[in-house]
Amino acid sequence: MSESESIYIPTYDDVMAARERIKPYIHRTPVLTSSYLNQLTGAELFFKCENFQKAGVFKVRGASNAVFGLSEEQASKGVATHSSGNHALSLSYAASRRGIKASVVMPNTAPEAKKAAVRGYGGEVFECEPSTTAREAMLEELVARTGADFVHPYNDHRVIAGQATCALELHEEVGPLDAVVAPIGGGGMISGTCLTLSNISPDTKIYAAEPKNADDAYRSLKAGKIIEDDAPQTVADGLKVSLRPHTWHFISTYLSDVLLATEEEIIEAMYLTWQRMKIVIEPSSAVPLATIIKNRELFAGKRVGVILTGGNVDLKKLPWMNS
Amino acid sequence: MSESESIYIPTYDDVMAARERIKPYIHRTPVLTSSYLNQLTGAELFFKCENFQKAGVFKVRGASNAVFGLSEEQASKGVATHSSGNHALSLSYAASRRGIKASVVMPNTAPEAKKAAVRGYGGEVFECEPSTTAREAMLEELVARTGADFVHPYNDHRVIAGQATCALELHEEVGPLDAVVAPIGGGGMISGTCLTLSNISPDTKIYAAEPKNADDAYRSLKAGKIIEDDAPQTVADGLKVSLRPHTWHFISTYLSDVLLATEEEIIEAMYLTWQRMKIVIEPSSAVPLATIIKNRELFAGKRVGVILTGGNVDLKKLPWMNS
Repeated sequence: MSESESIYIPTYDDVMAARERIKPYIHRTPVLTSSYLNQLTGAELFFKCENFQKAGVFKVRGASNAVFGLSEEQASKGVATHSSGNHALSLSYAASRRGIKASVVMPNTAPEAKKAAVRGYGGEVFECEPSTTAREAMLEELVARTGADFVHPYNDHRVIAGQATCALELHEEVGPLDAVVAPIGGGGMISGTCLTLSNISPDTKIYAAEPKNADDAYRSLKAGKIIEDDAPQTVADGLKVSLRPHTWHFISTYLSDVLLATEEEIIEAMYLTWQRMKIVIEPSSAVPLATIIKNRELFAGKRVGVILTGGNVDLKKLPWMNS
Repeated sequence: MSESESIYIPTYDDVMAARERIKPYIHRTPVLTSSYLNQLTGAELFFKCENFQKAGVFKVRGASNAVFGLSEEQASKGVATHSSGNHALSLSYAASRRGIKASVVMPNTAPEAKKAAVRGYGGEVFECEPSTTAREAMLEELVARTGADFVHPYNDHRVIAGQATCALELHEEVGPLDAVVAPIGGGGMISGTCLTLSNISPDTKIYAAEPKNADDAYRSLKAGKIIEDDAPQTVADGLKVSLRPHTWHFISTYLSDVLLATEEEIIEAMYLTWQRMKIVIEPSSAVPLATIIKNRELFAGKRVGVILTGGNVDLKKLPWMNS
């Protein structure tokens, strides 16, 4: 699991292979538009609705590509990961579709609902103490004991090639765009977007949208090297993790910029999306719209793709209920 | 505005005319499916998403058909209606697209947000005392003074022909269905569904889904005549109104049955739809799913269309927050 060794950078051929491999297990999600939000932003926005994806999130693309790319022998030993969120659901879903085991290491402090969700998709939960050391030790032990294949949430070429199929579908659906904006956490979706568009639409600008409260990608891009955040607090809880070598490659090579949004701006954009588009998106998915509203001069008059990455949210605890 | 006179019953030709007339002003809404809800109900469900419709509701179909069917001379005098809900928004939207005036009589007790929404779509609000007498008097005075065309929310052949285009699109999209389930309030959507399907798919059974707390359509169907409810209380606030002669014609002729759901069942079905389908629907739209879950024996193994009629809901006051 060392990450400093030389890494394999996925190619566009890997994306094409991923697309065929995962086709039976994922939705080709719709692209929606909103005349209200077009008017508000001055741009022509195309929302790629990965909130309608299997397991409610784009991550099922990368997880399925990893799981269905395994040899029979490897697959029989199962897959494993650490995640208390969408990657855990996605890997459990994909493993269950292949009929193999998914082991998920989660801190014992994770909410019962998140454990139940992983089990609901067929995953097995292994609880550890809530520290990076404990998590890594348990995962390492589990992999050594079972021979399970470790599928990292984003620092994995198979996962990035899988996520890259999303931008491919968007491009096929609406044609060349002036810009695409996607949220950035560890950078899996953004890397996949860069991988696809640098090959099929190199003039499309790619922007990463990040919470100001977790601005490690912003600071990394300015510094020219990976800078990690120390336990950031943001409503966009899918975006707290840091970049890693695989994703840094794409981000440092292809990204036009990282745009930041405050917590209030993210919640307002999420509310507007629910209210006007009548769709359920999670806070992370609202960060791109928040940055588009804020940076009107960059996007007005342009055709802009927006990746709505997921829709897994606790309907009983909505962020505008407290604001 | 007398309703006891002989009435014009719209025909399938009227539906075809409505379809062409309103095409530029409405969305052809998508049909979504959910493997989770299929598994839960044992049926194959096709959700026609009128929550994604212009103004967030199917009623824009009927309102647009009425507004764009007016002669230039009639149109120049505007349109008028009484409604504190979705019909008011829809008529305001349609009138504003045609560039004519929409006058909406609302009780002075209506929430400020509803008045603001009507104004947001370009309608003018006329406030009256909160009684049927005051409402009818003000509307009559307004129509006499301005010559505006009164567009009833559902007891109007133009409105029914407009709503009928929804089932037409559903049929075109997914082919013949064993059954279609739609909510029933005054019966506009159900009447339109009956009008279309009795012509193009007469074997499809049509069920109306109604809150148990506002079961006037259920009691009317059993009694063989219109029975009115007296101020029913239900979370499905779009479904409180009573049948009228135009809609009674279709309901008494074509409906297979009226199925009832309790408040708890409606809220649970609404929650499930948001959680699993990641879409925002209003409580009225959840009544069909509630009745399908409850009447498994009627629907299991069948191909069933479900009309999700609208998505206009106060995101800050969700019904499961109080339950």
